[in-house]
Amino acid sequence: MTDKYVYAFAEGNKDLKDLLGGKGANLAEMTNLGLPVPPGFTITTEACRAYLRDGKTPASLDAEISAHLAALEQAMAKKLGDPEDPLLVSVRSGAKFSMPGMMETVLNVGLTDASVPGLARQSGNIRFAWDSYRRLIQMFGKTVCDVPGEAFEQALDAAKRVKGAHADVDLDADDLQALVDAYKQIFKQHTGRDFPQEPREQMELAIRAVFESWNAERAILYRRQERIPGDLGTAVNVVAMVFGNLGDDSGTGVAFTRDPATGEQGVYGDYLPNAQGEDVVAGIRNTIPLQDLEGLDPTSFTELMRIMSVLEGHYKDLCDIEFTIERGKLWMLQTRVGKRTAAAAFIIAGQLVDEGVIDPDEALRRVTGAQLMQLMFPTFAKTDTQPLAKGIAASPGAAVGKAVFDSARAAERAATGDKVILVRRETNPDDLPGMIAAAGILTSRGGKTSHAAVVARGMGRTCVCGAEALDVTDDSFKVGTTTVREGDVISIDGTTGKVYLGEIPVEPSPVVQYFEGDAAHSVPARSGVSREDGGLNASGDTAQSPLVRAVDRALRHADEMRRLAVWTNADNAADAGRARRFGAQGIGLCRTEHMFLGDRRELVEALILASTSDEQEQALAALLPLQRADFAEILQAMNGLPVTVRLIDPPLHEFLPSLEELAVKDAQGRLGSREKELLAAVRRTHEENPMLGLRGVRLGLVIPGLFAMQVRAIAEAARQVKQAGGDPRPEVMVPLVGAVQELEAVRTQALDVIRDVDPGVPVPIGTMIEVPRAALTAGEIAGSAEFFSFGTNDLTQMGWGFSRDDVESAFFGRYLELGIFGVSPFETLDADGIGRLVRIAVEEGRAARPDLQIGVCGEHGGDPDSVHFFDSAGLDYVSCSPFRVPVARLEAGRAALEVGGSDTR
Amino acid sequence: MTDKYVYAFAEGNKDLKDLLGGKGANLAEMTNLGLPVPPGFTITTEACRAYLRDGKTPASLDAEISAHLAALEQAMAKKLGDPEDPLLVSVRSGAKFSMPGMMETVLNVGLTDASVPGLARQSGNIRFAWDSYRRLIQMFGKTVCDVPGEAFEQALDAAKRVKGAHADVDLDADDLQALVDAYKQIFKQHTGRDFPQEPREQMELAIRAVFESWNAERAILYRRQERIPGDLGTAVNVVAMVFGNLGDDSGTGVAFTRDPATGEQGVYGDYLPNAQGEDVVAGIRNTIPLQDLEGLDPTSFTELMRIMSVLEGHYKDLCDIEFTIERGKLWMLQTRVGKRTAAAAFIIAGQLVDEGVIDPDEALRRVTGAQLMQLMFPTFAKTDTQPLAKGIAASPGAAVGKAVFDSARAAERAATGDKVILVRRETNPDDLPGMIAAAGILTSRGGKTSHAAVVARGMGRTCVCGAEALDVTDDSFKVGTTTVREGDVISIDGTTGKVYLGEIPVEPSPVVQYFEGDAAHSVPARSGVSREDGGLNASGDTAQSPLVRAVDRALRHADEMRRLAVWTNADNAADAGRARRFGAQGIGLCRTEHMFLGDRRELVEALILASTSDEQEQALAALLPLQRADFAEILQAMNGLPVTVRLIDPPLHEFLPSLEELAVKDAQGRLGSREKELLAAVRRTHEENPMLGLRGVRLGLVIPGLFAMQVRAIAEAARQVKQAGGDPRPEVMVPLVGAVQELEAVRTQALDVIRDVDPGVPVPIGTMIEVPRAALTAGEIAGSAEFFSFGTNDLTQMGWGFSRDDVESAFFGRYLELGIFGVSPFETLDADGIGRLVRIAVEEGRAARPDLQIGVCGEHGGDPDSVHFFDSAGLDYVSCSPFRVPVARLEAGRAALEVGGSDTR
Repeated sequence: MTDKYVYAFAEGNKDLKDLLGGKGANLAEMTNLGLPVPPGFTITTEACRAYLRDGKTPASLDAEISAHLAALEQAMAKKLGDPEDPLLVSVRSGAKFSMPGMMETVLNVGLTDASVPGLARQSGNIRFAWDSYRRLIQMFGKTVCDVPGEAFEQALDAAKRVKGAHADVDLDADDLQALVDAYKQIFKQHTGRDFPQEPREQMELAIRAVFESWNAERAILYRRQERIPGDLGTAVNVVAMVFGNLGDDSGTGVAFTRDPATGEQGVYGDYLPNAQGEDVVAGIRNTIPLQDLEGLDPTSFTELMRIMSVLEGHYKDLCDIEFTIERGKLWMLQTRVGKRTAAAAFIIAGQLVDEGVIDPDEALRRVTGAQLMQLMFPTFAKTDTQPLAKGIAASPGAAVGKAVFDSARAAERAATGDKVILVRRETNPDDLPGMIAAAGILTSRGGKTSHAAVVARGMGRTCVCGAEALDVTDDSFKVGTTTVREGDVISIDGTTGKVYLGEIPVEPSPVVQYFEGDAAHSVPARSGVSREDGGLNASGDTAQSPLVRAVDRALRHADEMRRLAVWTNADNAADAGRARRFGAQGIGLCRTEHMFLGDRRELVEALILASTSDEQEQALAALLPLQRADFAEILQAMNGLPVTVRLIDPPLHEFLPSLEELAVKDAQGRLGSREKELLAAVRRTHEENPMLGLRGVRLGLVIPGLFAMQVRAIAEAARQVKQAGGDPRPEVMVPLVGAVQELEAVRTQALDVIRDVDPGVPVPIGTMIEVPRAALTAGEIAGSAEFFSFGTNDLTQMGWGFSRDDVESAFFGRYLELGIFGVSPFETLDADGIGRLVRIAVEEGRAARPDLQIGVCGEHGGDPDSVHFFDSAGLDYVSCSPFRVPVARLEAGRAALEVGGSDTR
Repeated sequence: MTDKYVYAFAEGNKDLKDLLGGKGANLAEMTNLGLPVPPGFTITTEACRAYLRDGKTPASLDAEISAHLAALEQAMAKKLGDPEDPLLVSVRSGAKFSMPGMMETVLNVGLTDASVPGLARQSGNIRFAWDSYRRLIQMFGKTVCDVPGEAFEQALDAAKRVKGAHADVDLDADDLQALVDAYKQIFKQHTGRDFPQEPREQMELAIRAVFESWNAERAILYRRQERIPGDLGTAVNVVAMVFGNLGDDSGTGVAFTRDPATGEQGVYGDYLPNAQGEDVVAGIRNTIPLQDLEGLDPTSFTELMRIMSVLEGHYKDLCDIEFTIERGKLWMLQTRVGKRTAAAAFIIAGQLVDEGVIDPDEALRRVTGAQLMQLMFPTFAKTDTQPLAKGIAASPGAAVGKAVFDSARAAERAATGDKVILVRRETNPDDLPGMIAAAGILTSRGGKTSHAAVVARGMGRTCVCGAEALDVTDDSFKVGTTTVREGDVISIDGTTGKVYLGEIPVEPSPVVQYFEGDAAHSVPARSGVSREDGGLNASGDTAQSPLVRAVDRALRHADEMRRLAVWTNADNAADAGRARRFGAQGIGLCRTEHMFLGDRRELVEALILASTSDEQEQALAALLPLQRADFAEILQAMNGLPVTVRLIDPPLHEFLPSLEELAVKDAQGRLGSREKELLAAVRRTHEENPMLGLRGVRLGLVIPGLFAMQVRAIAEAARQVKQAGGDPRPEVMVPLVGAVQELEAVRTQALDVIRDVDPGVPVPIGTMIEVPRAALTAGEIAGSAEFFSFGTNDLTQMGWGFSRDDVESAFFGRYLELGIFGVSPFETLDADGIGRLVRIAVEEGRAARPDLQIGVCGEHGGDPDSVHFFDSAGLDYVSCSPFRVPVARLEAGRAALEVGGSDTR
């Protein structure tokens, strides 16, 4: 904290955004580059914070403002509000992060009854003077004094009605002078005082209003959404007004130093002659393309081109600018590194490397995993069709298909070649075959972490969930007067959450086409297995699009830089193959429970219903060859790369029908004898909190032979693949371990089986770290584990005491509103709480066993911010769903450059 | 680890139990006291551990044994197995902790075919010689060579049949010689070799057999049960044999230095002339009272009395001894600090202080909370009645009453003065009124941490749970051919788990009678409130029993010594009053959810069903006066002491009927309109894992006004009590906080309400620490909390990922069997895992706020071992159920003396 609260533009620079805000810092930078910026000064965010904290401005602020205002007056050779030749200023907000439209600005500050004639005289434009005054009263009233905007709008409309005018410009100076009187009355009526006639008072009140706008409700909401901290405060820029509305030799415009949509170099922008910035926003007249300015005002145009070139060279990036021409004189009002589309981000970064402006590291810093993710989904072409409903955009992409309301039906129809959208009130593990078969999933209940959303994201399926307007039954859904039945075509947009009736044309992602195509590459495994092919550009140029080339280039540089390996979560050979094409270096999580669904459910039921150990052994023996075949396929698909198989995790009763369903049937006398047995088993195995019940390693220790069967299936599959000339690398992972004794008991059994099958294939045995106690006793557990894999989903559930199935719909929304979370801890790892457990386990696990291999296989493994955390925590790899593999590769590379995960906002 | 594996008795002492085992260390101690111990040596537990680890004895052991054997032979002037005059030895196990009957001993080692005649000659008793050989072959065969014991028994029986003999003593020397031949054949038949004729070989094999007996299955089970570590190993004592069976001037006996049941001084013991120790155990002849020895052998008797006096003076405690008289010569075979009843433990400790033998600290070390607990329950008089069934001894005590099968009926009958036993398949919160009304609770399902068990222990109700033999229906239970209906009298023993038909006479606990009586005392509150009365002995002697005096004395010394305050968990004025009489210094947990049951359930339903904020406010307004009255009563009962009220914690759907019940009724068309609404609400609020769902602070943040209503009720109750001249000290505790932002949001609301009601009554606001994340971010949370209270139940549930409702019956049994737990982490705090979270939170909470008050209100607060942990972790208080308050006081005192919680085993 310093005692200096005000900076002249010449005193700042672009790196002082914390203190001067983005706008102020960049105005300072431009000033120091010698570019034509209207003189002015910036009041710091510190002053704002002090004001918000204390309810008054710091004691020294007044004097500082006076000094800088004096300097400004001197530079402009005018005095603020001087009746003869008034200096007018704008008072503009400018926070560290851009919050477009969220905060306040007041223009024309300094104008009073007394100085309107002077302004008219100096500008030679009496209408302009009254219009400027009218605008001041309106903006000042609304912004500073909370006068309702409609009051002014109504008065303006009334004036136009009286005059028979269509637009503001049809009002002449007299009309505007009359309107000023009306506005002043409105002002007095709402505030109980006259419109302030003291220029300095106007300025000071405007400054405070900008400070206060930091805590306006819409600003708070915006920050929450954009994860901008709430305690930064805003700076205030006081800038000498320049006017683009003084005649045809004046005007205002915006421009980009290159095309923000594609990255192409050239002249991009819009210009509006004889207008102010607000007019452009209000859309009162149509703008003209920027290149047309060359004909209108070649001097200013040439100057602008020069300035844009200076700016891009200086910022080494695409910039956007706002400028005004006042009577042939060009003024720069703002610049910043420009927003761009995801595609342009990659292309521009590549171009700048080619142009020698930045190096490949810097290029990598300028693209994000979130941008890459966007580029990996198919998109709908533009459409005029009105959506039927809007739900939560749960898993991006654009899917079109026939609505089907039942999992088995979806699988059937898909098998005949139909594209289907599975529509359910909500999904559960039984719906998996249908979800796999479907092109997209639509539910009317559940949020971003509902079963549907999680599974869909995991599989890269498009999903819209929680579309509450839909009334979904077993064979149709209704929305308004529309009823959609099985076979009706619908389109769902997982990026916007929109649901359409009928087919909207879809465009596939060129990036995914590239990964999936023949040119697909894979990256070297950590274990040193050689790359299967050389990547796109290894064999020279191809006919790929600039976007694909740019993405490939960024990923390849990320691969060179990153310390973290990227593995994938895949439960079958198809997913494994796809992940490998996406660059996965191993499987970090192969779940086995999905292998127990479908036809095999009966075998699992037999296992649960077994009343003798003979029956139990028979049930297990029947599962063994099926599991062996599962594993053999996956080991083949990942030949030469590690495949971490997690032994069965969920409670067995998840494989049984629901209690409610059976109890109702029973009450109706509709249960057969096997179903009666099932009902008894459901009651017997019912758990109040299955998440915390008999699952994972507990199952393995309670049901003799279950884990041994799975380990045998893995070992036998490996032997089979090896005998066929392959290089199988299975690893066995034990879920839900909380104490080393649990792991040791399983390990002893497993080693016996492995030795028995084929001692020649080494099978490392490790553990999930997903129970808080496991993290807290990691030093002990490492003694019996060859690897750790963080199950950050469960670790989050238990560490926070949240059941993911329950809490999102119940209160996450409220928690986000209250600011208790900035983001759901299931999306981005909570570094302070859960992350502390991760760090403890890494540190103490490695202390006990220096060669311990450590990864993460929770969903966080593919989340950009979380990847940065895992890099900093010292993990060896992250494992994520196949679709997230490129994202994780990119972010792991960026993490190695020590960029904060969200720093490209 | 040293290289010395063998110690002569003269080389050891009583403090070397780790190395020499209890028996060896005490034999050494007696030897050094100059008492008549037969010469011998001890092979260390280290040698045992080495043998068990390596599968062979350490290389140097043989030579060491030879040297010590030579010294022994020299002392006895005999040679091991010498045909002329054989030295015989016993080879006895002796571990650090006594494991009675668990491990092996072989007597008469050294006897062979060749030396039997020599022994006969030297003893002048040929029958004795053959009998000794017969015993050796039998014990050696069984113990060392795994020959089935029945084989020898059958041969012995056959010999008796042939002879027409009733007892072993009826066999003469010839019979026994023939039996030896038969035994040798049996030995050869089962082992494939002749009985070893080399004395040294016999000894070495016997030593190994003792080593191996450490890992016998029964020994492992015993250790698990008694929480004895499995890696200690046993020592082996090789001792010259002395014989009590050489005639009427010989004999053997056991004795105590004072009465182990009451602590009274005097001669206590049994003597059997002309017999060996085994005969006493076998009960072949009746023993005589020890004092009768005075007539038989006054010299030995006098010597024995002298020795017992020496021992008690030396050990400063009650000792038990085993001795043998061989032809008028007294030999001490064993001594140790004697086991005693719980009552005797207190009385003896007091006596020894009075006698100036030990100081009050040492007396406190010699009694345990577990012993005190035993003394606080009523007991059944001895009975010949056969129990109907045996369940789990879930909450101790002896209860007799009429069986009732429904909670409401139990409350009704109790209101008419009946004593009832509530019998249910299992209990749930709805059964609470019946559980409160009942004298005891009996269930056929659930374990030690089932709802029934936990609530019963909390209330001090006798409970037997999981009596699986009972087939419980809604109005009766069947067991075998017996059917028990409502009104039939049954008796349940919560200390043994036994269930009886009819009334078994009950004796109340004199200790509880004392606490509950007029003489009840209270101890000073931490806040310095003066003691209400002076404790039993403050006003001089009373007519109390020695036991009550001894308990009172121990507790008062514990109160003087302890650093931890002891508070109680109490939800109503009756419990609060009782706890205060038991010495509680405050309420650490006043749950409010029990206040929402019974008649008030409808109001809670109204709150849940409310569809407008008006309806919600009405429901809350109806609850306010009821809650205010609840709190006023409790604040009055605890006048001057802190009362920590926990805001409502459980998910609201716990107050609704079950989904299954409503769904079945619905399917049968039997639902009224309100029930239909309820069914919809049940479906809407259903949670997969309610433990991890919408409860605690989450409820408070989601349902506007709920917490504010409770805080208002507390503040208004305090104002009311204060206005009536009382000294109310309420504290508000927020449950389930995981992030400081949650606490801060509640705190802001609560402070507003408190200020609004009466700023004159300060109400500290604090938080439970029961979510792992709260412990991990305690430094932040302490910024908004005036106190922490560890909810170690939930902390254990979440830290281990265990749902207490589910896991005990599902797999805790198996986990205890596998040794994954020594004890359930819900009974004794898991210091390594959950305890680490506690230590982190204490350390970082105090660092952030040095005056932070820290307690625990989970069930662990009354568990002896856990109290020691909480003392070492630096907590300010433990809070436990009223019945556990004296136990916690005692253990807190012992903890201050730095005694391990279980160290009096």
